[in-house]
Amino acid sequence: MSQNRQILLARRPQGAVGPDDFQRATAAIPEPGEGELLVRTLMVSIDPTIRGWIDRDTYLPAVPVGDVVRSVGLGVVTASRSAAYSVGDHVIGLLGWQEHAILSDKDRPTPVPGWMDPADALSVFGVTGMTAYFGLTDVGQAKAGETVVVSAAAGATGSIVGQLAKVRGCRVVGIAGSDAKCAWLTGELGFDAAIQYKREDVGARLRETCPDGVHIYFDNVGGPILNAVLGRLAMRGRVVLCGAISQYDDLSSTYGPPNYVNLIARRGRMEGFLIMDYASRFMEGAMELGRLLAEGKLKHRTTVVEGLDEAPATLRRLFTGDHEGKLLVRVAAG
Amino acid sequence: MSQNRQILLARRPQGAVGPDDFQRATAAIPEPGEGELLVRTLMVSIDPTIRGWIDRDTYLPAVPVGDVVRSVGLGVVTASRSAAYSVGDHVIGLLGWQEHAILSDKDRPTPVPGWMDPADALSVFGVTGMTAYFGLTDVGQAKAGETVVVSAAAGATGSIVGQLAKVRGCRVVGIAGSDAKCAWLTGELGFDAAIQYKREDVGARLRETCPDGVHIYFDNVGGPILNAVLGRLAMRGRVVLCGAISQYDDLSSTYGPPNYVNLIARRGRMEGFLIMDYASRFMEGAMELGRLLAEGKLKHRTTVVEGLDEAPATLRRLFTGDHEGKLLVRVAAG
Repeated sequence: MSQNRQILLARRPQGAVGPDDFQRATAAIPEPGEGELLVRTLMVSIDPTIRGWIDRDTYLPAVPVGDVVRSVGLGVVTASRSAAYSVGDHVIGLLGWQEHAILSDKDRPTPVPGWMDPADALSVFGVTGMTAYFGLTDVGQAKAGETVVVSAAAGATGSIVGQLAKVRGCRVVGIAGSDAKCAWLTGELGFDAAIQYKREDVGARLRETCPDGVHIYFDNVGGPILNAVLGRLAMRGRVVLCGAISQYDDLSSTYGPPNYVNLIARRGRMEGFLIMDYASRFMEGAMELGRLLAEGKLKHRTTVVEGLDEAPATLRRLFTGDHEGKLLVRVAAG
Repeated sequence: MSQNRQILLARRPQGAVGPDDFQRATAAIPEPGEGELLVRTLMVSIDPTIRGWIDRDTYLPAVPVGDVVRSVGLGVVTASRSAAYSVGDHVIGLLGWQEHAILSDKDRPTPVPGWMDPADALSVFGVTGMTAYFGLTDVGQAKAGETVVVSAAAGATGSIVGQLAKVRGCRVVGIAGSDAKCAWLTGELGFDAAIQYKREDVGARLRETCPDGVHIYFDNVGGPILNAVLGRLAMRGRVVLCGAISQYDDLSSTYGPPNYVNLIARRGRMEGFLIMDYASRFMEGAMELGRLLAEGKLKHRTTVVEGLDEAPATLRRLFTGDHEGKLLVRVAAG
């Protein structure tokens, strides 16, 4: 009980992540210094961006080999030397794949109400929901009557993007990788259409389902799907670049979309964003998403995997598409 | 004298345009109908977009095989059945590669003062200058202190982009294909640096010349140069997509830039535009460019080739880079 179990990065992954890229370790539970808090991890969020963090410098420095794997998580404060946080507070921050973490109050860990389901806090009210909200409304500038296409549509972010777009009065087409996912999108989630990219011709289906072209494409995947949508862009269409999960396993040969040239004739825009830039406006997103959740207009699924040791395999699942909605790993009950 | 000499599109070009893609013809001089004017062509403008027009439907329908090649030109009205235009007026419009053309007053041919050099009217005050002006200021949102990179920098549009950016207080790096062009950029035009892409490593030279990254890239060429600049984008950098001349000769295998993913980490934007969308604001551009020209702060070169029959070969020159500044063909003295 007095040890801190951790999962370290054993080496830089080549291609798909596998068990040999990580190793278990045990360390002493650290002591918080001035302005710091000790947090017991309850749950960690498994996000595509982790694949980048363990690979190379991105918008954050690469995780050094031998260090704890970086991950957003939710935990409870067990010791505090910060006036801003008290023992028993629930907070979200970069806890990493470990049972106990030190956070600095300078990094402003996000306080979470103790009654809130940790899975909700890390999905709808976490970076997932905020990414969907600000990507669609701010970067995408979604307006009623427009056609929105979203890829990885049954995923954590994509499923919220599509439902938000419906609430905004848009026509919504989701792209997903199984018939069951597509049925969920057009059934329970109310999407206007779904494209099963593993079985259907994406270009042909885009022509059928988006007769007026695509006004907003929320891209989570990159690759040939991005290219197909660029080819169907409506006049002044916007491509919101959220991620490129199809490309993360082999960054040495990233796919460039030739149809980018269509941005000229269509007067289109392709724009990237990182949700951390919107941190000061998270309240705005949380209020709208919270209202929709309360009104039953926002449905979401979470897959909670039990046990810290499962984190590496769960990260791999993110890339195989073998899940629906948000992927989380429970580290401790709380 | 009573015949209308024309150059027709003989077939859709495969790869680089050649003499067999065009054919000479002679037709009767047409009569203007109600609301139309007959214009005698003085000069036609040789622009990269013609390569697209004779190939396929773009933002305008493809020129049908057997039709006169579409081209912007400047001419003098020789007969008018429009209250808005009189015989003797100089106008710019889509005259095509022919000695006499019918324009409709519905298409609002642009009146040009009779004293103005036709070469100036078709370059600085024509779509070339307007493209530079609105691309840099509106799409690119250039601000003092930013680093601007422009490709095809010794070309008609690129040379104006760079000089305008200098006037706006930007640091300017031009990319061009010969030592003489590069010397012109950093000498007479006052660019801060130039990269000779045929001889130098573009990526390495971008690192040297843009230590703070690229805030605005005005892209006329596409291809690997676009990719290299995407790799050096500054935070919130903007890529202004004006053209992709390196790709026009083989549209079946357009190059997609893998570094587009860098738009995410850099919160960057890549945006296309067409100058015709800014037609209602051309006065604004003409006033600033005219002032700079009068103050000697805007230098430009034009290459005027004599004779309508030279139009096909001159279009080819546009793609070989064997020219500086604006390429024009004089059809008649006037």
